[in-house]
Amino acid sequence: MAPAQQVYIAVIGAGGVGKCFLSQLEWLAARRPSPRLTLCYISTSSKSLYNDDYSPIDISAAVSQLQSSSRGAPPPFSKIADYLAAAPSKVVLVDNTSSQDIAEAYPLFLSRGINIVTPNKKAFSGSYKLWKEIFGAAAASGANIFHEASCGAGLPVLSTLKDLVDTGDEVTKIEGVFSGTMSFLFNSFAPTEGSGGKWSDEVKKAKQLGYTEPDPRDDLNGLDVARKLTILARMSGLEVESPTSFPVQSLIPNELESVSSGDEFLEKLPGFDAEMEEVKASAEKEGKVVRFVGSIDVASKAVKVGLEKFDRSHPIAALKGSDNIISFYTKRYGSNPLIVQGAGAGGDVTAMGVTSDLLKVLSRIA
Amino acid sequence: MAPAQQVYIAVIGAGGVGKCFLSQLEWLAARRPSPRLTLCYISTSSKSLYNDDYSPIDISAAVSQLQSSSRGAPPPFSKIADYLAAAPSKVVLVDNTSSQDIAEAYPLFLSRGINIVTPNKKAFSGSYKLWKEIFGAAAASGANIFHEASCGAGLPVLSTLKDLVDTGDEVTKIEGVFSGTMSFLFNSFAPTEGSGGKWSDEVKKAKQLGYTEPDPRDDLNGLDVARKLTILARMSGLEVESPTSFPVQSLIPNELESVSSGDEFLEKLPGFDAEMEEVKASAEKEGKVVRFVGSIDVASKAVKVGLEKFDRSHPIAALKGSDNIISFYTKRYGSNPLIVQGAGAGGDVTAMGVTSDLLKVLSRIA
Repeated sequence: MAPAQQVYIAVIGAGGVGKCFLSQLEWLAARRPSPRLTLCYISTSSKSLYNDDYSPIDISAAVSQLQSSSRGAPPPFSKIADYLAAAPSKVVLVDNTSSQDIAEAYPLFLSRGINIVTPNKKAFSGSYKLWKEIFGAAAASGANIFHEASCGAGLPVLSTLKDLVDTGDEVTKIEGVFSGTMSFLFNSFAPTEGSGGKWSDEVKKAKQLGYTEPDPRDDLNGLDVARKLTILARMSGLEVESPTSFPVQSLIPNELESVSSGDEFLEKLPGFDAEMEEVKASAEKEGKVVRFVGSIDVASKAVKVGLEKFDRSHPIAALKGSDNIISFYTKRYGSNPLIVQGAGAGGDVTAMGVTSDLLKVLSRIA
Repeated sequence: MAPAQQVYIAVIGAGGVGKCFLSQLEWLAARRPSPRLTLCYISTSSKSLYNDDYSPIDISAAVSQLQSSSRGAPPPFSKIADYLAAAPSKVVLVDNTSSQDIAEAYPLFLSRGINIVTPNKKAFSGSYKLWKEIFGAAAASGANIFHEASCGAGLPVLSTLKDLVDTGDEVTKIEGVFSGTMSFLFNSFAPTEGSGGKWSDEVKKAKQLGYTEPDPRDDLNGLDVARKLTILARMSGLEVESPTSFPVQSLIPNELESVSSGDEFLEKLPGFDAEMEEVKASAEKEGKVVRFVGSIDVASKAVKVGLEKFDRSHPIAALKGSDNIISFYTKRYGSNPLIVQGAGAGGDVTAMGVTSDLLKVLSRIA
């Protein structure tokens, strides 16, 4: 097939990441004469915008035109797949949501030859069955699927792991801080210098600064980290069944699991500060600090998420702000791991992971 | 054009990196049914091996067969280019040397449609004219050229910088330790804890451990770091004329520049230990340690290589062994840089950078 002179882009989601992606796409489309990048579809959960003749949607006006679109809610996935598969040239679907429903439609899109790039963790950290269906459909049709931003946002985490594995290195262990929220909380609560604040105060501060989900329990339950570990473990060759099939330590006190709101949770959290103080003091007694980490021991197939103690000089202890750090221990790299570190969340850097995946797809199809 | 079912591989160089690459290529060829990877040419400076009908050379026996080859020295580059351009399918030339001559033949190979992957710094850090000729030839013919391992060996340094630039981020500063030798020397000479050894003793130890070039002055003159900085600066958009067109601090005392051998240099080096002790003491007085770093300030177009002082808690100070560290400061990443860290030299990890580049080329041509 001749290289495509035009590639159609379909975007689902216009939230924080979605808007940043659209601005990067606009920059890219203006800069690249070939292939021409044509936005042919955009939708949120309640609105959709597309032209039957695939004529281009103005990228810079897409979000405002979407809001006033007469199309209403998006068509069912099968209709979207029909529309995209019938486009006059190759198509890349960009899923900027965290929707489980859309993730479950990936095999359908891929089987129709539609390429996908996405930061959506759900598709790759749900059931192992869905994982196999997704990559099976991609292999069968030849469509590409990339999801760098599903772990560490724009940081080169998945591409680095893939390069290690694909060139024959033996990954023995992966360890790191995979949550910007957890990073911020523990860097403030148990800093390497000074004594840090009260746990409940740090959680409140993190929420005020926009570092947590609307209900902070969605960060403190460890599931977000468990999802990222699931992805990395599977890419390392482990058949992890789901993000709940290995030990994940939740930082939500049992008594507060079922309180009705995030606000009520924050109100009652100070009653449990003593527990966290004890955790901090026990680490201090050993000259260490406590951090919330995920680790994968490939040989023993042990995946776990939770609190660990680290020497103050350890790179994981010395992390700053809300940075992520990921250490790859491999046969080739020996005792000193290959380390990637930096912001692992935020609209712009997450969108950058998506945009660089889009460039990878373009280099393969155009 | 139909995707290639077979790709021909030509390898120049069979030293440390070359042998590691061949072993990774053998692993890869056995593992990938498509495209079939056929070794059709291999040479050193004095020997060459290839079959006129492009029939495959056994990868596992290539080095020993090369030694007993009746072909003798390799043909001139124009003849090699003729041979490879006439191959029945696409070709990737793997230059595992550090030869300036071969680097200068890249435009010729690329203009004939021959793809190149290489760890050879010379091509990308020589004159700016050669840089433009190389990428001009690649753009004109559509041939690919990748050189990840020319900076930081297998670490994802160039690919990360390319992703930042190509997605529209603004790189403001790049800073790091780019030499495994310099890293080892300063981590031992001026450790963050303890007082470290004498400078001349550390240089001798590094040489004994195989961390330096045969003549340690080839590391201490800073040129290796300057070459890597030249590559990064050019990829950031700066038109750096050559690796000698910006300030590079040499750690070779003037008086020892012209002594006849590396051995004589090592013998006389203790006479200059007092100078380096002074450098260390002046940093200690500020509570800091000294490190040999390279930095690029993109806005002011300032590139420099030499000694700098760092707080003991700074990631550059806390480096271990002979690790490299590279920090990318960008508009998107804000005050906390994106950091890549790990072994930046060694046969296996350098070959890994080459092999992952080969996989990138294969994903584009096959």
